[in-house]
Amino acid sequence: MSNRTVSDIGEHALISRITARLATPSWVVVGPGDDAAVIRPERGALDVLTTDAQVEGVHFDRRFVPPDAIGHRALAVNISDLAAMGAAPRAALLSLVLPDELEVAFVDALVDGFIALAGRHRIAVIGGNITRSPRVGSEQAPGPLMIDVTAIGSVKPRRILTRAGARPGDEVFVTGTIGGAAVGLYSLRARAGGPEDPPLRSPAGVEADLQVRLSENEQKYLRPEPRIRAGLLLGRTRAASACIDLSDGLADGLRQIAGASSVGIAVEEAAIPMADGVAEFHGTRGNDALCAALAGGDDYELLFTARPTWRGRLRAVRRQVGDLPITKIGVVTSDRQVIVRSAAGSRDLPPGFEHFR
Amino acid sequence: MSNRTVSDIGEHALISRITARLATPSWVVVGPGDDAAVIRPERGALDVLTTDAQVEGVHFDRRFVPPDAIGHRALAVNISDLAAMGAAPRAALLSLVLPDELEVAFVDALVDGFIALAGRHRIAVIGGNITRSPRVGSEQAPGPLMIDVTAIGSVKPRRILTRAGARPGDEVFVTGTIGGAAVGLYSLRARAGGPEDPPLRSPAGVEADLQVRLSENEQKYLRPEPRIRAGLLLGRTRAASACIDLSDGLADGLRQIAGASSVGIAVEEAAIPMADGVAEFHGTRGNDALCAALAGGDDYELLFTARPTWRGRLRAVRRQVGDLPITKIGVVTSDRQVIVRSAAGSRDLPPGFEHFR
Repeated sequence: MSNRTVSDIGEHALISRITARLATPSWVVVGPGDDAAVIRPERGALDVLTTDAQVEGVHFDRRFVPPDAIGHRALAVNISDLAAMGAAPRAALLSLVLPDELEVAFVDALVDGFIALAGRHRIAVIGGNITRSPRVGSEQAPGPLMIDVTAIGSVKPRRILTRAGARPGDEVFVTGTIGGAAVGLYSLRARAGGPEDPPLRSPAGVEADLQVRLSENEQKYLRPEPRIRAGLLLGRTRAASACIDLSDGLADGLRQIAGASSVGIAVEEAAIPMADGVAEFHGTRGNDALCAALAGGDDYELLFTARPTWRGRLRAVRRQVGDLPITKIGVVTSDRQVIVRSAAGSRDLPPGFEHFR
Repeated sequence: MSNRTVSDIGEHALISRITARLATPSWVVVGPGDDAAVIRPERGALDVLTTDAQVEGVHFDRRFVPPDAIGHRALAVNISDLAAMGAAPRAALLSLVLPDELEVAFVDALVDGFIALAGRHRIAVIGGNITRSPRVGSEQAPGPLMIDVTAIGSVKPRRILTRAGARPGDEVFVTGTIGGAAVGLYSLRARAGGPEDPPLRSPAGVEADLQVRLSENEQKYLRPEPRIRAGLLLGRTRAASACIDLSDGLADGLRQIAGASSVGIAVEEAAIPMADGVAEFHGTRGNDALCAALAGGDDYELLFTARPTWRGRLRAVRRQVGDLPITKIGVVTSDRQVIVRSAAGSRDLPPGFEHFR
């Protein structure tokens, strides 16, 4: 494999490598390569837009996150936000900030992961931007790798899911399982060892360094599957009264819905669908497993509320999402408190993730 | 003035400071604060989308670019791309990557510059993202400040301006003047002095350090005025056959139009509307002034082609753009060469700006 770096081939050649691989559906009027992209909005639908950046050293660590997973995650976290609005993803813009020693093969693999996920959800990559990451400090250390994505989706006006529709008496549900991605991140980090700088390795090198089969929780951290279909069905059937994705943890999600809807939520501890291995992982380390699972981010499941009288709609959703579990974990209350109830009594939530904190 | 840093107040408080200042027009169905923003597309129009990042140490230097100018430029470079498509800007997403020692007052001033330009063009800021910039290297130097913007505009289907419509015989025009922003950048950089790290100063500190009145060329670099109205008029009147904005210099713009349209362009050296002071600035430094003006980026003027038989349309545009000069600088040819002609003969173009080169 060639060891050429991005500075060996330059911005224009990098852009050509990416755009050569993109498919352009008929509703893309002007694709990548002009001053801007032009797309035809979906008839009778609203545009849904979100942006989210993944920054090396903050959101991922190149010592144990392979490049295809960096690309996958960067798109996944954005379309997960669209799913939480009940929107169908349509297009994405990809903005890359690359240290100049980065190998071209690394960028290729990152784009592989991005395009593979885009393809599975029929998302058109309509444009983007590539720029250099600056050298930093007196030692002129390579700057961080960053990938900032904007995702564009569409939703019919009456099918939008916001965080603000929960009412007292609604039931609270979560898709999939909780806490797995955070445990996966802990164990990937533990394997990677010391805090030394990530080498600018080729993807083969990164994968080889891991050497072992990844656990399900590690996979969930590296390559989360955003709940696009569940979000679409919750919107289309109008089964949900409020919805959010669990990027910053279940505790944060519960607080966001409660805050936006001006309600409280009481969660039953025993009902939370913990991912396999979460209790054991935290137990052997003397952590409070519940607290860790509530606080841990990166699960990208959907948290939603639904009126008890809408059970038929929710049954329709369950029938169509295949084997994705949808678990009732609590109820919406009128007292504006978010609590976790167990046989031992009630407890408050741990804080969610917040940058700069 | 308080010296609080972004890590003193945290991500949520920073987001609240920004969103509290945003106006929400009626076509914004869901504004900032949910998983994604929802907007109503303009009836009968296409969506136009572009993204562009401004990275500290690559696109700007905090020693001489005040924070409001960083915010202004980040939006300006994006809506300039919309103008070059003939699109009306409607909305923007603002993604910030901030070193944790950055002062809150700096962020406020950056947002001031962003919102002020957005307000002048009635652009709704519908969402965004704030994340931390990582410490870098063994000395744990503060990571770069970055501001990545996605701009969304609309255009009627038959009014789109691409780079690909130029035909042999078309005339080539440019708005405003050329080379000024690059000279402004040189002189700002010369004043700032040495290559030491930028201090994390409050905006008042940065402005005070400049101490002198900024020249017109320095202003043009710091606070470019994107040619929104000219782009819209060129599209609406269908006066232009191809169009691009001059972010990477006139030489690059000419090459991009020629390449996308499969044509050549012959520019008359004497016709190029050099900004005041450009020839003198380069002359006293022994530079080739023409070469420097052609290669210098950051002007954000529009370069476009027009059929000679469409002169009436162009007259209509001229009447409506006020005192913005529109200057004919050359003609489109069939030989796929881009050259500059003068009394002394023909010469090739200098290269344009390219990252990693």
